[in-house]
Amino acid sequence: MVVKVGILGCGNVGSALVSLLQEQGDEIAKRSGFRLVPFRIAVRQLDKDRGVNLSKESFTTDPYSVVTDEEVDIVVELIGGIDPARDLIREALNLGKPVVTANKELIATYGAELMQTAGKAGVDLLYEAAVGGAIPLVRILKESLAGERIRRVVGIVNGTTNYILTRMSEEGIDYDEALLQAIAQGMAEADPRADVEGYDAAAKAAILSSIAFGVNVVAKEVYREGITGVRAIDISFARNLGYEVKLLAIAELVPPLSAANHAINPPEVFTEERVSQEEVAVRVHPAMLHRSHPLASVRGPFNAVFIEGATAGEIMLYGRGAGGRPTASAVLGDLIDAAHNRQSGAVTRRVPTRVARVRDIGSLYCKYYLNVDVVDRPGVLAAVAGVFGENNVSIRSMEQLGLGDEARLVFLTHTAKEADMIATVKALSELSVVEKVGALLRVLDPIDSSDPQGEPSYSDDTWTVPGSPRVHSGGTA
Amino acid sequence: MVVKVGILGCGNVGSALVSLLQEQGDEIAKRSGFRLVPFRIAVRQLDKDRGVNLSKESFTTDPYSVVTDEEVDIVVELIGGIDPARDLIREALNLGKPVVTANKELIATYGAELMQTAGKAGVDLLYEAAVGGAIPLVRILKESLAGERIRRVVGIVNGTTNYILTRMSEEGIDYDEALLQAIAQGMAEADPRADVEGYDAAAKAAILSSIAFGVNVVAKEVYREGITGVRAIDISFARNLGYEVKLLAIAELVPPLSAANHAINPPEVFTEERVSQEEVAVRVHPAMLHRSHPLASVRGPFNAVFIEGATAGEIMLYGRGAGGRPTASAVLGDLIDAAHNRQSGAVTRRVPTRVARVRDIGSLYCKYYLNVDVVDRPGVLAAVAGVFGENNVSIRSMEQLGLGDEARLVFLTHTAKEADMIATVKALSELSVVEKVGALLRVLDPIDSSDPQGEPSYSDDTWTVPGSPRVHSGGTA
Repeated sequence: MVVKVGILGCGNVGSALVSLLQEQGDEIAKRSGFRLVPFRIAVRQLDKDRGVNLSKESFTTDPYSVVTDEEVDIVVELIGGIDPARDLIREALNLGKPVVTANKELIATYGAELMQTAGKAGVDLLYEAAVGGAIPLVRILKESLAGERIRRVVGIVNGTTNYILTRMSEEGIDYDEALLQAIAQGMAEADPRADVEGYDAAAKAAILSSIAFGVNVVAKEVYREGITGVRAIDISFARNLGYEVKLLAIAELVPPLSAANHAINPPEVFTEERVSQEEVAVRVHPAMLHRSHPLASVRGPFNAVFIEGATAGEIMLYGRGAGGRPTASAVLGDLIDAAHNRQSGAVTRRVPTRVARVRDIGSLYCKYYLNVDVVDRPGVLAAVAGVFGENNVSIRSMEQLGLGDEARLVFLTHTAKEADMIATVKALSELSVVEKVGALLRVLDPIDSSDPQGEPSYSDDTWTVPGSPRVHSGGTA
Repeated sequence: MVVKVGILGCGNVGSALVSLLQEQGDEIAKRSGFRLVPFRIAVRQLDKDRGVNLSKESFTTDPYSVVTDEEVDIVVELIGGIDPARDLIREALNLGKPVVTANKELIATYGAELMQTAGKAGVDLLYEAAVGGAIPLVRILKESLAGERIRRVVGIVNGTTNYILTRMSEEGIDYDEALLQAIAQGMAEADPRADVEGYDAAAKAAILSSIAFGVNVVAKEVYREGITGVRAIDISFARNLGYEVKLLAIAELVPPLSAANHAINPPEVFTEERVSQEEVAVRVHPAMLHRSHPLASVRGPFNAVFIEGATAGEIMLYGRGAGGRPTASAVLGDLIDAAHNRQSGAVTRRVPTRVARVRDIGSLYCKYYLNVDVVDRPGVLAAVAGVFGENNVSIRSMEQLGLGDEARLVFLTHTAKEADMIATVKALSELSVVEKVGALLRVLDPIDSSDPQGEPSYSDDTWTVPGSPRVHSGGTA
């Protein structure tokens, strides 16, 4: 059986998809019983060479003519952005045509609406390629883990920032230099803001939370911090402690605010009963990750997502998060699904979405790393440490690096409330002895430790600075 | 809708499954529209407490009565072994009942036959839990990568041996001590042979090749070496070179023998045209893996599978490979699939299997590590090196460790043919100056390097011994 595919957009991914359909056509036909044919392709410019072997008549500059073409069985949307992609997909679905898209931005904002349209039309809307490139995240979260109580999803979902942080970590270079290298290597755009400021990761975090927890989270609800404030010194200090610094997208179920907010103590450990409260915390920020954590060894442009399930335990999926061919591979997997379902009259399972409260980051708890440039004179440490105490943040250890004008205090805290830590940072920056408050890094801790102050299951030497002097908050400093 | 599940066997996995169905029943019903009920359970002993909350009437000692019970909609087989599991599954399929199994041994030998029975009956036979525990390997290989030309699958698929090798590597202890620790920790059976001699991994390798390449490979066709010959000294030497030693299950498409066998040179790089020749190489043995390879950081009891696709690139899936709850989680994913399909009248896609030649390991190529205990006197190296040359194995580097009675030569070779290397080992063991030929370790190289002698894409310092003296085969030693 021939299945005619209409493709909207023919850039990197689109041309890789056309090549794949041509190269793998026989094999797919043998394995699945149908032949996927690139039939009509909408492009912006007709005269551009796309390196694909298709007749001129296959191309058009009118994407609507592809969607409405009666011979087109399935539509693949690779234009990106909100408009006109949103309207084109809606139109295709309403015409009863399954749609495959790689459009992260669109799904992160209008995913729920479009899924509803697909549901009413009784056809598939698939978007494996929108998160994690070639990594089959969506399928695993929706199907393999359908019976699983997922507790947290932690991902390295942006290849550009991971490439930059890897260079900083392995070569000891600073952010600006690593960014220039990334641009020179084609690993970053000339205008890198969408990546380095975390917007790309935040959109992916929204999609991941929606699938993992069956709630409707949109990109703008995701707390977001990029990597532009991370310095070589922070990474080198983290490494001495046994940690890597990664830009993480984190989505987790959290205990309801009423329970978490009643004291300055860390919240109790997550229990099953609280799940019904449906609160979800979603954020993107640089974080310290113990080197024994499987995500810590994800280097360069690779992506990975670490899923913590109540029953399955820890699962990690790793692969190429971007690039024409890896992304086209994910689109092809979806296309084959859509074709199968079209043939059998079924649709791929949808995760029903519910309204959920998205928890403000201010009421979350974790351990922090903070460095503070100070004037080097007696009494400074007492003044600085006092600010932590006044804001209910307990210091786990402190180290002084440098002397005189270069004096810097590096603090590691016990588990503290985010709002208290932010208040501490603000108060510190107003102290006369403080010259500059540097990077604030959050530490990724295990979620299911029975002791909230305990060490991660994947770590055996948290917060140990080998051979360095330590000052504890309980001391006389 | 209620779906009644018949469960054969109620050990670790079975009782975890019953608990899961009870705990997650509401959630699954909400997400999928049906309620999975543990309805009839076959056990060997009725009076054993299994820690599950089910009435006595649910249990029977007759597994056939569960399979034939008209109220049972889906059968889960958790008995293990060939008989009577094979016959029970056949009977269930012939009665039109979908079957979910975690039986690695059975699928690795009679998988093709049972899939054929399922195909004729038009119902599902699902076995996600048979390989890699909670890791959704089968689904990804069958569905997400349905359009992908998979070139190689490399896995750490046995938790016991990975635990032992991790202890040996991290604590510098020898095999016997690590094995005792593993037994004490419940990570190894009192009779550990199925694990440490590679039988378990070989069965999983057979299943992986069948799914990845659509060919019918059975367990006994898999070349198999365990870890009992690996010594602490080998691991420590490998670590100095930047490598970890892991027990790997490797399945790959290889160029046809006629091309590979025509010279002592390494075969040319794999090209698409050769795929049609359908030759597959499947093996389990300890191997050296560069520490920058994502599999190198898989520690302790965890499993991971690294998939190299022509389009998707490198994908790794990581998680708990064994244990009652992780395995039950995979069974539950399959159960939900089977229930969905039963409702919609569909069946999960099957990968058509074809007859394929399984390539003998003797005609494969790789780099080798070999250590040889020798008497320490002039001319020994020349004699030993001569044996390599006579057998067409080119030495890349040699290092002497120790002196006098403790003298040991450690060789690293260029890429060589397995049969030549085996002949070298045999000839060395017959030399009078050789006291003992120690471990032979193969090195995992990238498959898609354009230079067969080149470095792995994930490595930048192959074969460099920092600060140690080197003797090259071209030298005067």
